[in-house]
Amino acid sequence: MAKELTSRSENYSQWYQDLVIKADLAENSAVRGCMVIKPYGYAIWEKMQAELDRMFKETGHVNAYFPLFIPKSFFSKEAAHVEGFAKECAVVTHYRLKNDPETGGVVVDPEAKLEEELIIRPTSETIIWNTYRNWIQSYRDLPILINQWANVVRWEMRTRLFLRTAEFLWQEGHTAHATKEEAIAETEKILDVYATFAEEFMAMPVIKGIKSANERFAGAVETYSIEALMQDGKALQSGTSHFLGQNFAKAFDVTFSSKEGKLEHVWATSWGVSTRLMGALVMAHSDDNGLVLPPKLAPFQVIIVPIYQKEEQLAVISEKVKEIMAKLKAKGISVKFDDNDNKKPGWKFAEYELKGVPVRLAMGPRDLQNGTVEVARRDTLEKQVVEIEGIENYIEQLLTDIQSNIYTKALKFREESTMKVDTWDEFKEALKKGGFILAHWDGTSETEEKIKAETKATIRCLPLEFEAGEGKCVYSGQPSTRRVLFALAY
Amino acid sequence: MAKELTSRSENYSQWYQDLVIKADLAENSAVRGCMVIKPYGYAIWEKMQAELDRMFKETGHVNAYFPLFIPKSFFSKEAAHVEGFAKECAVVTHYRLKNDPETGGVVVDPEAKLEEELIIRPTSETIIWNTYRNWIQSYRDLPILINQWANVVRWEMRTRLFLRTAEFLWQEGHTAHATKEEAIAETEKILDVYATFAEEFMAMPVIKGIKSANERFAGAVETYSIEALMQDGKALQSGTSHFLGQNFAKAFDVTFSSKEGKLEHVWATSWGVSTRLMGALVMAHSDDNGLVLPPKLAPFQVIIVPIYQKEEQLAVISEKVKEIMAKLKAKGISVKFDDNDNKKPGWKFAEYELKGVPVRLAMGPRDLQNGTVEVARRDTLEKQVVEIEGIENYIEQLLTDIQSNIYTKALKFREESTMKVDTWDEFKEALKKGGFILAHWDGTSETEEKIKAETKATIRCLPLEFEAGEGKCVYSGQPSTRRVLFALAY
Repeated sequence: MAKELTSRSENYSQWYQDLVIKADLAENSAVRGCMVIKPYGYAIWEKMQAELDRMFKETGHVNAYFPLFIPKSFFSKEAAHVEGFAKECAVVTHYRLKNDPETGGVVVDPEAKLEEELIIRPTSETIIWNTYRNWIQSYRDLPILINQWANVVRWEMRTRLFLRTAEFLWQEGHTAHATKEEAIAETEKILDVYATFAEEFMAMPVIKGIKSANERFAGAVETYSIEALMQDGKALQSGTSHFLGQNFAKAFDVTFSSKEGKLEHVWATSWGVSTRLMGALVMAHSDDNGLVLPPKLAPFQVIIVPIYQKEEQLAVISEKVKEIMAKLKAKGISVKFDDNDNKKPGWKFAEYELKGVPVRLAMGPRDLQNGTVEVARRDTLEKQVVEIEGIENYIEQLLTDIQSNIYTKALKFREESTMKVDTWDEFKEALKKGGFILAHWDGTSETEEKIKAETKATIRCLPLEFEAGEGKCVYSGQPSTRRVLFALAY
Repeated sequence: MAKELTSRSENYSQWYQDLVIKADLAENSAVRGCMVIKPYGYAIWEKMQAELDRMFKETGHVNAYFPLFIPKSFFSKEAAHVEGFAKECAVVTHYRLKNDPETGGVVVDPEAKLEEELIIRPTSETIIWNTYRNWIQSYRDLPILINQWANVVRWEMRTRLFLRTAEFLWQEGHTAHATKEEAIAETEKILDVYATFAEEFMAMPVIKGIKSANERFAGAVETYSIEALMQDGKALQSGTSHFLGQNFAKAFDVTFSSKEGKLEHVWATSWGVSTRLMGALVMAHSDDNGLVLPPKLAPFQVIIVPIYQKEEQLAVISEKVKEIMAKLKAKGISVKFDDNDNKKPGWKFAEYELKGVPVRLAMGPRDLQNGTVEVARRDTLEKQVVEIEGIENYIEQLLTDIQSNIYTKALKFREESTMKVDTWDEFKEALKKGGFILAHWDGTSETEEKIKAETKATIRCLPLEFEAGEGKCVYSGQPSTRRVLFALAY
């Protein structure tokens, strides 16, 4: 195989990096920390977008677009938000370049200095709530249920393709409500949308929960998240939904007259998932041969490779392949025929394994004689010879099986990697193995910070589903009423 | 009507501005020159995107994503490009803010100054061709047919919603080819895609042509465009497709080994349409009552308004409306039922006229008795009472008629507003009336510039379709072999 990957056991982090690049998902650009999302990677992101967008619209949301730039002063308006976001940002200070006679290049024109600097949005609460002020007067103007698909920039020092980049793509929902209850219900509804998307489309089981105060979004009253477990035993926060209370409405003076004629501050939520999901998708399922893509998100679900010696054989095979393709397409299955004569079948097999195409069909002259085709599934690498007659039904079922098998495998891995521990020694021992740890915690930020300082483990969330039960904090020994979820995390 | 518009005859420019804001398409933001695209406007843009994206994919293109930032030095590499683009740009000079103890706000951290400034992309040729260098070695790597949907920033001094904004949304295609012929064919293919989109979806007739050297894209060998005529007699360039020759390949050193084993520079095209099309759509068809949207791009095609006095009546009407909606939806027609009790039918009629909904159904108790419904079409404002039985077929046909009627009306207007002139006096006289002017031109930039200086009229394009025929330049009297298209333009 031309494009050999580092194996997961050898170096997981290098395996990930190799895979993202060699499978043509993305690469580093000439701009520090910014990536180029290549067509194959972008096709997966487009499928994610399409499904999420459909789910947002089905739950009553509409899309809009707000400016890339945020005036610097907006950041100072919400006290917690400025602490969390206004630091590592790209700052626009000038609006013109001019010729440099000395070098023949261009230089920044010092006369074109902005009166107030503009920040490239790291998230859009401030500019959006500044806009909502003009849109909301009465309870009749509520709720506002808006989402935007956009790029954002956070000046990260250590970047990794998809997982942490200076510029990334995401969607950010920003909703406005008349009551606290309605805003909380919205926050939870979106968490469910994210969990459903992760499990049904990405085939990635997630745990829904609430963040501890330390891990809360800057400016939120409560942050909900979905947490997934990667194959190296580390957690990856895959989506967040924030109940913002009236914090932004107060900071930007957004009020409405209620049904009872009282002037009140508006209640808010915000929520987002990003191209980070691409990293989660890669790490949740893939193996040492390459990507393993869930059929529902694969750019194409079936690849057909002809096996032939002579041109005449290819011609006959191609005829048969066209019939099969028509039948597959009629069922809504996406399929590609690789009849490129420059590459050998073995090279193609390896290439499409690397790219995670769920099903591969190989057809040679003998298959044609027998009315059969060789079917290989990417998830288990199993091969089978199947009759061409009715192949479309077989493959339709196979794609469903693969989707569900990938999910089941990931779920099994997570269950096997989730440990309940009751002592500090057990906790440290469990961390060495990796995975999720369910342990009692005394509820204080102090303890959380000490645990993090000693072990790097963080509280991923307080799972929404849990068995109530008294216990003692694994670190401080103080009383606790429930277990929370710890892990090392991306 | 609550939201009265300035009429077109009174003040066309104010009419446009009023309409964009009052129909909830977009508004100015707190950031100078940047707009907020509101949900109703964004829904139209999404429909445009979906159709264009489908057409790009059908012609073999794939999407990808390149960084928002471009290192300053990249601009200097292509001489013409730097002249055209590296001037009015947003420049990122710093990557961190810090607390300002004096004001309690934040200030730019002087220690976080970038070594090389980053420019927010005004267009992406430079960063993309810098990337293509690593993707292209052999003729086997060609063609590359990539498009990206993105935001770009050009620091315009005078901005107008959709027509000219500092930040705008667009798609930019960037293709790489082994031969000049193939690149030119690509440039022309995309021009056809744009023209088809404008005419079949926007219902807006366009003239395809080639730009004069003065109006060429900075860095192009040849720029093609589609030009549309607005109702005020001014032209609007609605899409451009550039044959870039080997200019960017040479600037960024992108070579390939040909089939014959020779090292050659790659041939390039780039092409784009933007949210400017939203402005074109508004100005091409709308009237003093509001928007007129072509059914193929309307966020919803049919609005149903109940007419009732008592709650019981609404209940019965709603039952019937549900049946009608189901039948319309089964035909793929998008429909909304406005049973909001806070607004009177008259208010709703005006509101949906303002928003350009192609078809309005009104149903009262008497209609119900008679098995009829009142159908109003937005383009002609005609009303008709129609039987509910088979209404879905009637409306399906009506939507087709409206789409074609809007196009025909715009085409007729353009034909009536296109004048052939042969003398300088006629030219100036024609300009006063507005519209397209077909006149002979001596082919020199000098004449073109003089005409522009005297009249503000520019050469919109050298139409691809034209009658050959000798003549004399309308300005200089020098010999000319063909007429070109002049107009005042946006």
